[in-house]
Order: sequence, then C-alpha cells, then structure tokens
Amino acid sequence: MLKRPDHGGDIYAAAERLGCRAEEITDFSSNINIVAPAVKLELTPALITSYGDPRYSLLRSTIARRYALETEEIALFNGASSAIMELFRSLRPKRTCLYTPIYGEYVKASELYSRKTRLFDRFTELYKRPKKGSTVVFVNPSTPDGRHYDLERLFAIWREARCTVIIDESFLEFSKKPSVRKMIREYKKLYIVHSFTKFYACAGLRVGALFSSPENIDALALPAWNISSFDAAYVTALLSDPDHRSLSLKTQKEQYRELRSILKGSGLFEKVYKSDANFILTRSDRAPLIYEALFKAKILVRDCANFDGLDRRYLRFAVKGKTAHKLLKKGLHALA
Amino acid sequence: MLKRPDHGGDIYAAAERLGCRAEEITDFSSNINIVAPAVKLELTPALITSYGDPRYSLLRSTIARRYALETEEIALFNGASSAIMELFRSLRPKRTCLYTPIYGEYVKASELYSRKTRLFDRFTELYKRPKKGSTVVFVNPSTPDGRHYDLERLFAIWREARCTVIIDESFLEFSKKPSVRKMIREYKKLYIVHSFTKFYACAGLRVGALFSSPENIDALALPAWNISSFDAAYVTALLSDPDHRSLSLKTQKEQYRELRSILKGSGLFEKVYKSDANFILTRSDRAPLIYEALFKAKILVRDCANFDGLDRRYLRFAVKGKTAHKLLKKGLHALA
Repeated sequence: MLKRPDHGGDIYAAAERLGCRAEEITDFSSNINIVAPAVKLELTPALITSYGDPRYSLLRSTIARRYALETEEIALFNGASSAIMELFRSLRPKRTCLYTPIYGEYVKASELYSRKTRLFDRFTELYKRPKKGSTVVFVNPSTPDGRHYDLERLFAIWREARCTVIIDESFLEFSKKPSVRKMIREYKKLYIVHSFTKFYACAGLRVGALFSSPENIDALALPAWNISSFDAAYVTALLSDPDHRSLSLKTQKEQYRELRSILKGSGLFEKVYKSDANFILTRSDRAPLIYEALFKAKILVRDCANFDGLDRRYLRFAVKGKTAHKLLKKGLHALA
Repeated sequence: MLKRPDHGGDIYAAAERLGCRAEEITDFSSNINIVAPAVKLELTPALITSYGDPRYSLLRSTIARRYALETEEIALFNGASSAIMELFRSLRPKRTCLYTPIYGEYVKASELYSRKTRLFDRFTELYKRPKKGSTVVFVNPSTPDGRHYDLERLFAIWREARCTVIIDESFLEFSKKPSVRKMIREYKKLYIVHSFTKFYACAGLRVGALFSSPENIDALALPAWNISSFDAAYVTALLSDPDHRSLSLKTQKEQYRELRSILKGSGLFEKVYKSDANFILTRSDRAPLIYEALFKAKILVRDCANFDGLDRRYLRFAVKGKTAHKLLKKGLHALA
C-alpha cells in the first residue's frame, strides 16, 4: 500500500516514489485555476534588496478595491494556512465547531488552540445548534465536495448562539455565487479567510488574507514584513488583470462539464458530486484501485480518506485542461 | 519630536513624514550588504503556478553545502524573525537571559513565550552566571555595536549551567570571524539563528534558518510551504554565487574604514564603536539633534534609544557606498 499525502499538490513526493521527474506527473490533486493570469512583473533590484513597505500599502489598497473593502478591514499573511493559524492563536476559542468534511488546516489549528473541537457533519447535521459562544468554521464553497451553501439559515442559528464565525471563501471566485464579505460591517464577530493562490493560480506564492472589522484586524497584532516583496508585488499585479475573472469563469464552466462527463461516463463511480468550485468529488467502492492504477500512470488524484466524515471510497479530481482530461479519460477507460 | 521607528529600514514611513518618495531617502538605518549578488533567475510559470517542493530540498542542500551542515540540521522559515518566534514558541523557556543590547525581536519573543525574561548587560555583566536551565540568547557579532565575541569562556559558563543556547550569527559573514555552527554536533541544546537577508542583500525576501541537531529540528514540527517558491529559488541561486563573499569582504573592509573615518572626523561623537559587522554605533550627547538634522536632509539613521541598555545618545550608521558616505559627510559637516 502506498502512503498517501495529507495535502494535494505534492508531486515531488509522488515523483520520488515513481522514480520520475515531478514535471512528468499530471496533477489532479491540487485545485489551481488552469487559467494563469497574464502578469508581467519587472524584477527590479530594489524589490529584492530593500526592506519592503511593512504595511504593504499598495497590495492592501488593491485588495480593498477588488473586493469592495476598506484597507483597515484587511490583514495580510504569508499564505492562507498562516492566516488560519494566527487567527486561532489570537482567538483561542473555548469551543470550536468545524463543519466537516473540511481542510486539515482547520482541524490542526483548532486542536492546537481551541479548548474543545466539535465536528458537525455538513451532510447529516447541517442545522444542529452550536453551544453558546462557540467559534464556527464553514468553508464555502466547501471542500472536498465544492458545494456552495446559502448561509442565511445558518447565520440565523450562529447569530442566536452568539458565535464567532469564520467563513473561508478561498474557492468562491470560481463561481458567481455571492460572498458574505459585506456582513463584516454588521456582524462584528465575523472573519473571512481568503486565499489568492487558487483562483489566481499562484500556489508558489505565499499571500493570504483575513477580512474583518478594523477593530478585529487591529487586535491581531501582526509582525512586520511577513510577506515576500516579490509575492506582494506579484499579487498586486495579478489582482489588477481585468480579464482574468471572465476568462476563468468561461474556462471553468467548459472544463468542469468536460471533467464531469468523463467521470460519469467512466461508469466507475457510484456518485459524482455537483460542485461550485474547480474540483469534483467522487465516491466508489473501487476508489483505492482507481487511485493506484492512475498513480502508476503518473496521474495524481486526491485521496479523501483523511477528511473527517469521508473514507477511502472518496476521490477528488481537479478541473484541468483538455490534454490532462484526455489522459485521465484514457486512464479510467483502462479500468472499466 | 518625531516618532522613531522600532526597526531600521522603514523608508516608507520616513518618506510619508517628509512628503517625498521613498527612493529619495538615503537609508543608513538598515544593515544590508551594499554588494548585491549577481543572480540571474528565470521566472518560469511553474515557479508561480505550482505548489513548490514542501521540503525545499534544493535550497536545503545548497545551504548544507555552503555552511558544511547536514540537511537534517537545517530548519527553514519565512524570515529570521519568524525563526526566532517559532523557536521560542516551541521551547517555551522558563527563564530567558538576553545579552543586551539586542534586537527587539528577541525581547518580544521572550516576553511572549518565556515565563521570565532577564537582561544581562554585555558591557557591564558579560560573565554573570545565568540560573540553571536558563535559555540564553547571544547575537554574535552583536547589534547595534557590531562586536564579535570569542564565546569560549561564555560557553563554559552556559555549559555548566546546562543552558539552552541560542546564538544569532546573522552578521557573521561580514568578517572572517569563526562560527560556532559545528558545535551543534557536540552541544545538543544549541540553536544557531541565521538570516540570509543581510549579507546576501535581499531584505525583500523572506527566508531565514535555524541550525541545530536533527532531533531538535524535527521537534519544531514546521508547517509545509512556509516560504515563497520565488524566494526559495532566489536564495538557492545567490548562495551559489562563488564571488559574492570575497567581493563583499573587500568592499566591506574599504567602506567600513571610510565610514569610520567620516564619523570620527566629524568631531560630533564622543565614541565611535569598533565593529565586525556592516554598521557602526556612535555615542553623542547631541545625537537627537544629529538625527533630526540628517532626517531633514533625507538621511535616515538608526536611533538606538529603544535598545535595552542604550539611550538617545546612541545612533547606528550602516556601511554604505561612496555616494551615500559623501552625502552623510556633508550632512554631518553642516552640524559641526
């Protein structure tokens, strides 16, 4: 039995096991937009040599403009995982309710910094009432299934229980579904986690953000210079690309349909989940076999056994381009 | 009275106060090597788009080769300040002795994570005995004075008191003074903090390291992907430049002499400290006046009043190039 990675995207470990170069692997395990933004960034010496602006004013104002926020409502981090860790470190919740299945990062952060961690299964106990004063975490669109939830009824429950609410919208931009960003002005205990690496296809960069009230942002007391100047300049440039969003939505729609039809057409899966994000969850009793056969064909998919509430029957496939989809189709066909 | 920054290098805040552009400021406040390494780095799409190698194997092996270490003896961080914070977070010392004056980062980390913080004045109580089991922090060459200490006698004291020892060698490469790196194989409670941004002139990048025994490194349990792929690739490339060290040592020697002669020649300082690093500490009763006059001339120096054991009489000047030195000379001359 092969050891499976905890996180998608580790093509380096996969390549080592397969005895090939990382570039030879077709990676369906990490959810990176296949449309890369058209960024031209000049590598000036000052960008490398000098201390950057410790407040990252230009990046901050670019994000503010793009997401209709005030600059004081934004905290910047060395990646969204770091945002999650620092938020938990700062909140140190008495009781945290995680709506599962959910990213491993939230489980880790809650186990480290929350006195108690409760798991609410989104599939079976969505409207269960959290205890008063709990901190709740909801990823929307969710992962690994990609469903976008209308949060109105949940918010009513959370509000009544005076919960601190953390909503992760890192995959929101892959659809036209609404954000709850604006609610930070009305509900003071709301934090939005936002990753730029998925939709803006820059997993090599380390920039993530939290949106909340200026008072909450101020209370986080962040260290100066927590982001690479290059990364800050790059994200500033890519958020300013006007065509990225429309082109991405168009491509996502087409390629999502293609992937879904390949997965359904293979006849290998009992269930192919509907998704509002750039990945598709599947369930099959034969999943372990499928995983290994694809792995040997240098196709890496995400085994979802380590998500709470799921098991080894669940695999996740990222929406990719035509060539990768063809390879996958061939790989699945060989199994049918 | 102008508000002074806690850290050197914040030319952005200075520019805002002066109503000029950041580039117009001559920055003597941050200690960046004036010799920038000759790095040619190609910005490949994969460097931006893909998840990087979470173990940073190439960077790790390059550092190992450069500093005669094993890869298992190296932990990588998003900057040296992050290394310091994570180390304290992991050690959670009962009692920490900081040899002052010292960087603000160590004071902050110790106040956050150590039950007690004691300050040992390097100038007056260097050989004072720390309590048994203390964690001691020594920056060598020290800052803001730049003196390199022979640590033999101190190590005998620390060893006897079974101290956990943290040595910061971030400025070591500016001289030919010896490192205590090799001692990590013999003294199991030794950690070396190493910043690459000073000597390799890349303050915009966020890469720092800790060197210790493989067991200690393993116990730190670091998050995956804590460094930007670009920054990792850049530091890998710059550590491979064979001429950087020799050219830097030559330039440092010449320019250090020039700066020292300008400071001494000005007649404004009661004391100009000898330094083994790329900065010079001065003492003058007129320091506040000197600071402000230079500031108005768009020359930013480091006010050392917020270093424990120092006061407003102390200013620190970074070793810079001929043009900057000329401007400083002119600025000081106007005051004499």
